[in-house]
Amino acid sequence: MQRAAARQNTLTKPNGSLGRLESLAIGLAGMQGYEGPQIHLPYIIVIAGDHGITRQGVSAYPAEVTPQMVLNYLRGGAAVNVLARHAGAQMIVADFGVAVDMPAYPALVSQKIAYGTRDFSVEPAMTEAQAEQAIAQGISLANRAIDEGADLIVLGDMGIGNTTASAAMIAALTGKPAADVTGRGTGVDNVTWKRKVALIEQALITYQLHLPPYDLHSETENIPFGLNLLRHVGGFEIGGLCGVVLGAASRRVPVLVDGVITGAAALLATMLVTNARYYLIAAHLSVEPGHRAALAHLGLTPLLDLELRLGEGSGAALAIPLVVAACKVLNEMATFSEAGVSNNG
Amino acid sequence: MQRAAARQNTLTKPNGSLGRLESLAIGLAGMQGYEGPQIHLPYIIVIAGDHGITRQGVSAYPAEVTPQMVLNYLRGGAAVNVLARHAGAQMIVADFGVAVDMPAYPALVSQKIAYGTRDFSVEPAMTEAQAEQAIAQGISLANRAIDEGADLIVLGDMGIGNTTASAAMIAALTGKPAADVTGRGTGVDNVTWKRKVALIEQALITYQLHLPPYDLHSETENIPFGLNLLRHVGGFEIGGLCGVVLGAASRRVPVLVDGVITGAAALLATMLVTNARYYLIAAHLSVEPGHRAALAHLGLTPLLDLELRLGEGSGAALAIPLVVAACKVLNEMATFSEAGVSNNG
Repeated sequence: MQRAAARQNTLTKPNGSLGRLESLAIGLAGMQGYEGPQIHLPYIIVIAGDHGITRQGVSAYPAEVTPQMVLNYLRGGAAVNVLARHAGAQMIVADFGVAVDMPAYPALVSQKIAYGTRDFSVEPAMTEAQAEQAIAQGISLANRAIDEGADLIVLGDMGIGNTTASAAMIAALTGKPAADVTGRGTGVDNVTWKRKVALIEQALITYQLHLPPYDLHSETENIPFGLNLLRHVGGFEIGGLCGVVLGAASRRVPVLVDGVITGAAALLATMLVTNARYYLIAAHLSVEPGHRAALAHLGLTPLLDLELRLGEGSGAALAIPLVVAACKVLNEMATFSEAGVSNNG
Repeated sequence: MQRAAARQNTLTKPNGSLGRLESLAIGLAGMQGYEGPQIHLPYIIVIAGDHGITRQGVSAYPAEVTPQMVLNYLRGGAAVNVLARHAGAQMIVADFGVAVDMPAYPALVSQKIAYGTRDFSVEPAMTEAQAEQAIAQGISLANRAIDEGADLIVLGDMGIGNTTASAAMIAALTGKPAADVTGRGTGVDNVTWKRKVALIEQALITYQLHLPPYDLHSETENIPFGLNLLRHVGGFEIGGLCGVVLGAASRRVPVLVDGVITGAAALLATMLVTNARYYLIAAHLSVEPGHRAALAHLGLTPLLDLELRLGEGSGAALAIPLVVAACKVLNEMATFSEAGVSNNG
């Protein structure tokens, strides 16, 4: 990172004049362990799972939309597909817990853990073994992508009901009241939003998921708490995406975080392995209020703020060209001496 | 635009969930006059000119950097070159007023109006004929680019001293005090900054360049005032870039505005032709305070906020992939009925 920063100051521009593009490239140098960081093959990993909590009417869309959108990803018609092609990114689409059987598609990674989580307002969302399985499968997916050449991992999610699960996790992991981190998801009305908040608050009390204030701000890993949280109010795709972060970080591959669901997954990952935070890049700031809380807790500043709230990795895919640009500027610009330009030193 | 907005709401995403990407595409539909706006060939037009005011010591870099950087653009080593290649954009580099003779380069558009402007703290920066010539040459450059197939015009500037000229123009056109719209340019210290502010305030008084408050907020064109302003405190590249905006707008081609210099040029363009504002897209928010004032006066919200302050079109080039992405999402995403996805209507 020191060598990357030193090179930035030799390039034909006033020092610091490319702002966050410079610090991003320096950060990437640290992640990749190389003063000339490069991104050649971004991989978007979209993991899908259904949520039992939808039975309580927390979403504007029916749960059948989860498998329909998974098919849309496989056929290339969703926003994330368009943005993946635009950015030259590969896509992996994985079923970790869609509530129905999916048609056989060669490109679909079928690793269903269960037919959706259980309704966390009635019982824990999953078993401890399922929580661990989701994370393990996520780690494997990251490893597969990296073995195939991925040098940037981009997180995407699909699951009707998953803003409710994510808000519950973010409330627990940041210590904020549910009302502050719960949004309107796909677009629910006031009455539904209040029900969503009440269900989350009740679950955090029932399952005793509030961390003491001291632990909230410590950088101490708390693996039992993290697994317990995922198990009670999480989702299979959230556990999976947490695993993807852990797998990528362990291989020193940067991870581009999308919206509130992948934000919750990234937050969980740092609760399990503190150092995972050094491999995270926040692509954008979502309209979902929990996203802001998650990014603030992670100490991340988003690259984009375009009022997105779609998920599926769309905001992260949109930021890929910025991350690639940051690398290219550092590697390809002429230095003052190469270009014969007078510096002000 | 109505047809583009209607199509947005048939695509497989909750209505409005792609936020500003949706409104950007709808705006582009209006500019191009077509419900499926497309960007195939962005052209970055970088215009260079020197400034007599540099004799008063307002810049951290010597004026010799202007021609050196022009050569850097022609050789492909500057930030804007890297970002142009990244975005698949063509570049036009034009000399409208560099203070020295430039070596003959086939790619350089040599349309020097004079060897730099005069020192506006002593006399008007240029003659009225020169101001008109700069604008006319800019219109021609836009026409050339559009004739070659450009469907997005991206503004770039080079000129040591031009943040001083731009701040003066923005102060006059927005009615704000010079101290509020004057920044540190390439990085001057406090003493130099104060001198810069004082020179601008004095010039605005000397040349009587303060518009009455009523006119500031009217949408009435005031061509004599605009030309007078450019003539007294402007620059050849600023006049040229104003012409590029006018030329592009007259051909219904969208214009991506970069930092404070191109912001001043865009503001001037709307003073000459009010409707030019409908063809402007703000790429980013510069660190330069005058840029925020110019964009606010134009009613533009920037796409990026990455603390850039380099100019030369670098921030605008960085935003090209976002503008292209907005078009692709509108054109390439599947609709709910095509994809067999349940809508919530």
